[in-house]
Amino acid sequence: MEQTERTAMSLKQLATLVQARQVTPVELTEAYLQRIERLNPRINAYVTVTAERAREDAARATAEIAAGNYRGPLHGIPIGLKDLYDTAGIRTAGGAKILGERVAASDSTVARKLREAGTVLLGKLNTHELAFGVTTNNPHFGATRNPWNAECIPGGSSGGSGAAIAAGLAAATMGTDTGGSIRIPASLCGCVGLKPTYGRVSKAGVLPLSFVFDHAGPITATVEDAALMLQALAGYDPDDFATAPVPVDDYVGSLRGGIKGLRVGVPGNYFSDRLDDEVRTALEQALEVLRGLGAELRPVEVPDVGPITLPLFGVVIAELLEQHGEQFRTRPQDFGADVAAILGQGAPDGLGVAAVLRTSYAVAAAFRRVLEEVDVLVTATTPIPATTIGQEMVAYAGAEEPVILAMIRCTLPYNVARLPALSLPCGFTRAGLPIGLQIAGRPFAEATVLRAGHAYEQATDWHQRRPQLNV
Amino acid sequence: MEQTERTAMSLKQLATLVQARQVTPVELTEAYLQRIERLNPRINAYVTVTAERAREDAARATAEIAAGNYRGPLHGIPIGLKDLYDTAGIRTAGGAKILGERVAASDSTVARKLREAGTVLLGKLNTHELAFGVTTNNPHFGATRNPWNAECIPGGSSGGSGAAIAAGLAAATMGTDTGGSIRIPASLCGCVGLKPTYGRVSKAGVLPLSFVFDHAGPITATVEDAALMLQALAGYDPDDFATAPVPVDDYVGSLRGGIKGLRVGVPGNYFSDRLDDEVRTALEQALEVLRGLGAELRPVEVPDVGPITLPLFGVVIAELLEQHGEQFRTRPQDFGADVAAILGQGAPDGLGVAAVLRTSYAVAAAFRRVLEEVDVLVTATTPIPATTIGQEMVAYAGAEEPVILAMIRCTLPYNVARLPALSLPCGFTRAGLPIGLQIAGRPFAEATVLRAGHAYEQATDWHQRRPQLNV
Repeated sequence: MEQTERTAMSLKQLATLVQARQVTPVELTEAYLQRIERLNPRINAYVTVTAERAREDAARATAEIAAGNYRGPLHGIPIGLKDLYDTAGIRTAGGAKILGERVAASDSTVARKLREAGTVLLGKLNTHELAFGVTTNNPHFGATRNPWNAECIPGGSSGGSGAAIAAGLAAATMGTDTGGSIRIPASLCGCVGLKPTYGRVSKAGVLPLSFVFDHAGPITATVEDAALMLQALAGYDPDDFATAPVPVDDYVGSLRGGIKGLRVGVPGNYFSDRLDDEVRTALEQALEVLRGLGAELRPVEVPDVGPITLPLFGVVIAELLEQHGEQFRTRPQDFGADVAAILGQGAPDGLGVAAVLRTSYAVAAAFRRVLEEVDVLVTATTPIPATTIGQEMVAYAGAEEPVILAMIRCTLPYNVARLPALSLPCGFTRAGLPIGLQIAGRPFAEATVLRAGHAYEQATDWHQRRPQLNV
Repeated sequence: MEQTERTAMSLKQLATLVQARQVTPVELTEAYLQRIERLNPRINAYVTVTAERAREDAARATAEIAAGNYRGPLHGIPIGLKDLYDTAGIRTAGGAKILGERVAASDSTVARKLREAGTVLLGKLNTHELAFGVTTNNPHFGATRNPWNAECIPGGSSGGSGAAIAAGLAAATMGTDTGGSIRIPASLCGCVGLKPTYGRVSKAGVLPLSFVFDHAGPITATVEDAALMLQALAGYDPDDFATAPVPVDDYVGSLRGGIKGLRVGVPGNYFSDRLDDEVRTALEQALEVLRGLGAELRPVEVPDVGPITLPLFGVVIAELLEQHGEQFRTRPQDFGADVAAILGQGAPDGLGVAAVLRTSYAVAAAFRRVLEEVDVLVTATTPIPATTIGQEMVAYAGAEEPVILAMIRCTLPYNVARLPALSLPCGFTRAGLPIGLQIAGRPFAEATVLRAGHAYEQATDWHQRRPQLNV
């Protein structure tokens, strides 16, 4: 078997081989490290490759498995972490020059859990500066490129995490999502991204963009892989006030249930008002696939999140300036132009922040109300495919708007609502760029969301396509 | 049996009589209505007595029970709601003149659940204006008086709810708690108050003081009664974004477990630095009772919440001004002097609000860390007993401070930490004023907190004392 073929496999496929001792974590890790060495200069997914640590992790996992101590499906699996997850002794810079060569003393809870599950850490993945943007065109660490078209953005802010999965540079990665930063790269890179319910996965030790709206979650090649990652990560963590002792479901086991009779809400207003034609066609075809699998499609009206979008940026600005305002005052030149421009708008006053919080709670309740009538909501993830690196405005559906506003249009609502939302591939444009389908559900109902996504994925083959990256 | 004896019974005792058909809800309701008519002019617990609604509820419950349709332990039980809980067709004014004769179109989730459980609504209970204070010396609806000493405050903001329980004017009541507003009246009135975990009981349809720090919970005569109320109220509510599908425990059943081996954390710093001598003595004796019941006392260090107290007021001011700023600008004379003075301080800027949120999350995590080592934390509820109506400053433990800061000193930390906290009687001062014991626990571990409180209560008789209110 060729190394490149291994790196094109899903986490689940690799786990099966590792458990059966058909491949060792050491062999797997070398395959990924070689591929990273070959492709990362072009893709720029990794900002730090931890080859030494990876080889140590892999040697330990290989020895443990050889000794019969198999820990579970993540044992020996090579992964990457967005450069917002603290890793003891390894730089975590959040894509920001102002954080310099910051090295945390201890692991984030996610890094610790993945280590305990036996994963192999390949390195830290590029992010939009401070996770505040959707292009991952990072002025300090370079632009990450979309493996499907190197002229295009991978999305962001977890662009390195999405690009690494699409390019076969990790078997699974972790991203963070404040307005869509896991799901947008998943959509634009043709992979799977899961933003769990607020509080389902610990954010302890993750550099914050917005304490109020940040979520942590995986980016993977398949829905099953996302379930495997969530299984290892979900749960109460005393170090993250937002986590709650909600029982952890059998996410992997529940994938098999099928979706006969599942009530699929199809929002008729905000989410479908503005869509690129090719995205709309792919969405409509995906809905027909779901119907063919036994789902019951129901038109629903959802809250119009449009008016809250810009005020919500204000809250994030307030949170960022509260953390980094001193640096912004004294070292403005050390911020990228786009982040500096947004921070330069300044923060709203206290009443403005309070107003956004109040509105966000009302929006969250309104979505929960809709989800009393249906089991999931299905929309496009992004209304457009990947744009070109450096492009600031985008025209689609008859009007032009900033790329950032277009990209977060369909993802931001579920940060406001704090609901689980999954993105998975549902087609390609004529130009060969991936299109993403978004499935959202009730609080802590990740099992239902994943089951719906898995059923769709099993009925289609979009997730099996890989970009051509011969070098 | 005398009517006054019935109104001196616990909810549990009354439920037993109702279920056994030894008393009808109609008889019980008439007993409470007569007592309210006799005593409320003096205590001023109720701002609205809904006698007609109560008689309708009671007649229906009596008929249902006579027909063999017993709904459960709250069926036919007369209750009162703090005037912040929306009740369809009945005024909900939040103690505020600016809200005038506000009447909501539909019930709050709590009011609906209690109606569905078969309770009888006696009326709406006085609150500190907008729930923003601890005296319930309400300039628009009059001062509520402490049943143990009519010159003293009942605490607040849920002062009507506490006074009603102490005076036998309801079998159970509901309060709300942003900085101690359930537990302070419980402490000062010698009854039981439970602030559940943030998100355990729905706040949908409750007038907000602070979306960020508000909690809804019961005030009752005994810990068992609080468990009975929580059993009916806990759970996910799509209309409150903060509720989560955490399993609802058998709160009543778990009371019987005892506390042998329970690890009781005794904070040695912030919570014990400043206590009135009689309160400190009562606390120490209570800890000895717990030890005698098999609990293992452990000294612990908790986060110092002192520095966050005033900034936290700033967030609440921002939230109130965001809601009522227009009225405050145009009708300042329609606010009470104390609330106007606080609102007049103005709100912090957006960064100030963000800073408090960030700090509050860190404090919440730090308390959760401490609670990995112990099962509960036991402290005084208030460092002082009830102060005199109109008194603004209080001297204790060698220094003087505003009454509001003294009263919230030990309760506010658990609003910041969003943890469950129970107050129950643990003694009386030589002047005959009640002293409260506070037991806090892990997120959603209300069953443990209630079990500890119940064990203490069963070993003591403080909860059986009733103030002399002969008229």
